[in-house]
Amino acid sequence: MTPASIFVGEFFGTMLLLLFGCGCVASHLLDKSKAQGSGWVLISFGWGFGVMAGAYFCLPLSGGHINPAVTFGLAASSGDWSNVHIYFAAQLLGAMAGSGLAWLAFLGQFRASQGPFLGIFSTEPEVRNPWMSAATEIIATAALLFMVVATGQNEALALSGMGVLIVALTVTGIGLSLGGPTGYAINPARDLGPRIMHQLLPIKGKGSSDWGYAWIPIVAPLIGGAIGGVLGTLVQDMA
Amino acid sequence: MTPASIFVGEFFGTMLLLLFGCGCVASHLLDKSKAQGSGWVLISFGWGFGVMAGAYFCLPLSGGHINPAVTFGLAASSGDWSNVHIYFAAQLLGAMAGSGLAWLAFLGQFRASQGPFLGIFSTEPEVRNPWMSAATEIIATAALLFMVVATGQNEALALSGMGVLIVALTVTGIGLSLGGPTGYAINPARDLGPRIMHQLLPIKGKGSSDWGYAWIPIVAPLIGGAIGGVLGTLVQDMA
Amino acid sequence: MTPASIFVGEFFGTMLLLLFGCGCVASHLLDKSKAQGSGWVLISFGWGFGVMAGAYFCLPLSGGHINPAVTFGLAASSGDWSNVHIYFAAQLLGAMAGSGLAWLAFLGQFRASQGPFLGIFSTEPEVRNPWMSAATEIIATAALLFMVVATGQNEALALSGMGVLIVALTVTGIGLSLGGPTGYAINPARDLGPRIMHQLLPIKGKGSSDWGYAWIPIVAPLIGGAIGGVLGTLVQDMA
Amino acid sequence: MTPASIFVGEFFGTMLLLLFGCGCVASHLLDKSKAQGSGWVLISFGWGFGVMAGAYFCLPLSGGHINPAVTFGLAASSGDWSNVHIYFAAQLLGAMAGSGLAWLAFLGQFRASQGPFLGIFSTEPEVRNPWMSAATEIIATAALLFMVVATGQNEALALSGMGVLIVALTVTGIGLSLGGPTGYAINPARDLGPRIMHQLLPIKGKGSSDWGYAWIPIVAPLIGGAIGGVLGTLVQDMA
Repeated sequence: MTPASIFVGEFFGTMLLLLFGCGCVASHLLDKSKAQGSGWVLISFGWGFGVMAGAYFCLPLSGGHINPAVTFGLAASSGDWSNVHIYFAAQLLGAMAGSGLAWLAFLGQFRASQGPFLGIFSTEPEVRNPWMSAATEIIATAALLFMVVATGQNEALALSGMGVLIVALTVTGIGLSLGGPTGYAINPARDLGPRIMHQLLPIKGKGSSDWGYAWIPIVAPLIGGAIGGVLGTLVQDMA
Repeated sequence: MTPASIFVGEFFGTMLLLLFGCGCVASHLLDKSKAQGSGWVLISFGWGFGVMAGAYFCLPLSGGHINPAVTFGLAASSGDWSNVHIYFAAQLLGAMAGSGLAWLAFLGQFRASQGPFLGIFSTEPEVRNPWMSAATEIIATAALLFMVVATGQNEALALSGMGVLIVALTVTGIGLSLGGPTGYAINPARDLGPRIMHQLLPIKGKGSSDWGYAWIPIVAPLIGGAIGGVLGTLVQDMA
Repeated sequence: MTPASIFVGEFFGTMLLLLFGCGCVASHLLDKSKAQGSGWVLISFGWGFGVMAGAYFCLPLSGGHINPAVTFGLAASSGDWSNVHIYFAAQLLGAMAGSGLAWLAFLGQFRASQGPFLGIFSTEPEVRNPWMSAATEIIATAALLFMVVATGQNEALALSGMGVLIVALTVTGIGLSLGGPTGYAINPARDLGPRIMHQLLPIKGKGSSDWGYAWIPIVAPLIGGAIGGVLGTLVQDMA
Repeated sequence: MTPASIFVGEFFGTMLLLLFGCGCVASHLLDKSKAQGSGWVLISFGWGFGVMAGAYFCLPLSGGHINPAVTFGLAASSGDWSNVHIYFAAQLLGAMAGSGLAWLAFLGQFRASQGPFLGIFSTEPEVRNPWMSAATEIIATAALLFMVVATGQNEALALSGMGVLIVALTVTGIGLSLGGPTGYAINPARDLGPRIMHQLLPIKGKGSSDWGYAWIPIVAPLIGGAIGGVLGTLVQDMA
């Protein structure tokens, strides 16, 4: 993996993640969508298959992080911080591109619907309490990193190429089980990239980009990623 | 793979895809169906498992394309255009056969229901704007080809035989996330074959076959397939 | 595989299939069930995971048929009819045992609900036309055998042990896509065993066992199994 | 596997199971949850992916039991009872920790909702009849152990690392098919640990911890586990 392959891989991988992810929320929320009102099972599987697509796509190029919390958690546990800045930059730009493509794919639906539209781009908590929202995101991201570490050390899964699928289904599970309170960012790029796009794109009635909440889905997943990466590695190393 | 095995494989593979795909839409829409009103999660998994069945069935015979956009995208990236006409012909005929079998399986339900019935056969946009519909189909098909290319080059998935499942779940994800605006053809044969059958079959109250829209789910997936096939291959070759 | 292992394997495998299968329909239909009204997605995945459980359980003992149409289709294509009678007997008895266990697991729910209850045990068509019902069952069972044959010849799936999962997900797909008209027996034992149990068990208000329909889910799946087994093998042998 | 790795593995594995499991029920039941009212498909997949996460995480450390009924059933069939007490203690403590984390993740939702809340922590029968509830739990747990034994002896699944996924999807299937009557404990730690937490945690309006029912989801799964472990092993050994 070279810096160039890391950048290109993470850009396109995170782009796919956000294309699927923002797309499934748009499918559920917007008027003139055949899937309108499908609910949380659709959303959790949509994001999970987005992780599957994005991570398989960039696995040979960058290791398939598509999430700064994964990059941060693995760096914190390994002590290798080289290239972290490349991962972060590519993930943020890819997330912006993916949410922009999702907006393009649903352009007619956006025009037919009433805003606000921030929920299609970024996460919003149901209860406005920063400590509670942070706790939810930390717990959910730590669980994700536990599984990233465990599947990464599983030699049978490496042989069969199925480790990414297990992580993707874990993310579906996190959505089903822990997504209710905050919309489960568990990924700073997944939240910040689309929030920037929501700010920039000329969408009628889009509403506020809610920058007051934006720091939580950045900071809390990084904390949770570090906890999950370090603790998960310590535990796996007992095997 | 011989021309004969390609033709026979793609015919039966695409037949299975359309049997499952048109079947699940009929299940959801028609009266006297036990699954009536099940919604978009059923439809997205129904089409995804149709891809799984069709592609596994013809994998050793033809490589498991069952989609002219896949054939076109792989030819555009490899430069090998031999046999493309065989793929296209078999895919179109198989799609016609599969949608005809789905109609036969739901014959009593068609008779008990009010038309129009085009939505069971072919795709229809929710917003009538050709540029928007084309954009949605191009984006979704390019994402599909990204995954066809990436799984095709993944040696671990080849060893375990799981590459087709990953592509099939990707198609479920495309349905969940990007199917809302146009009904996600992402496959010219999937749309044209059943549209021809809708025109030909003697179904009471079937309504218009809407030939004015028919060119978009042919042309846009081919464009998206070429973009995804060429760009996806360029990116994967950086690994 | 010995006659004894075949009998024991198929008995317990088909028992598991019917325990899960009848159970998920009871979950959906009966009062005092936490899953009441969950719909066709639950039912299709419930039966699919029943196939997965049953077939993995008896795979090393009997090859994992758990369905007389599979046994019949494979015998018709291979010409080897030895042991077919052992498969059939074990499958029927296992189906009876499994549906009986499902009844036991839902005993309180049966007592709290109004009948008739045949739909929890056996299949019933939505439209009373034997030719249409037979056509639906033949098409669906032939599709199943196509996949049994194709996955059975796929060496990568044999190596990774994933062939059974692909067949199980195919059965989920058949449920989603082709189950609406008749409730998709696609398996004579799955229908006849529970129908006998419905006749025998002392359930208040259970209603008619509808023996007039019983021959269709026996005969049609066997025809479809033979077509799918023979044609599927002919096609796969072109590879 | 050392006593220390078993303890730590089972603790964190069972913690993950309960975090996902209690989380998905909270998602469905509580006000101010984006997934409120999603229903039994969400709950069954949520618990299944919880098994997947927990068991993959501790597989190399402890064998991935995360369930005293699995530990008991495997000990009963192998005759090796060493370390069983370590498994039990770690599973109970892990279940307490996991349900506590789920409560923390949904703290704002608990505060916004009306109790009682026992159903988010522990299982409750729909029909109050101990014999019926015990029968349901015994049947469901025996089916689980059948699959634990069968996948554990499947060499292809061991090679590809997919055995845990098959067991996890089996648990999803048990939820879909057999969870309706009692909420499917099928795991003494999954029920007792959260029940203790429900008793201890200071949650307003939480209601009774229903200790009168608590013995059934402890005793019945152990009986079912022993039956399934011993009988399943006897059957598999015929192969």
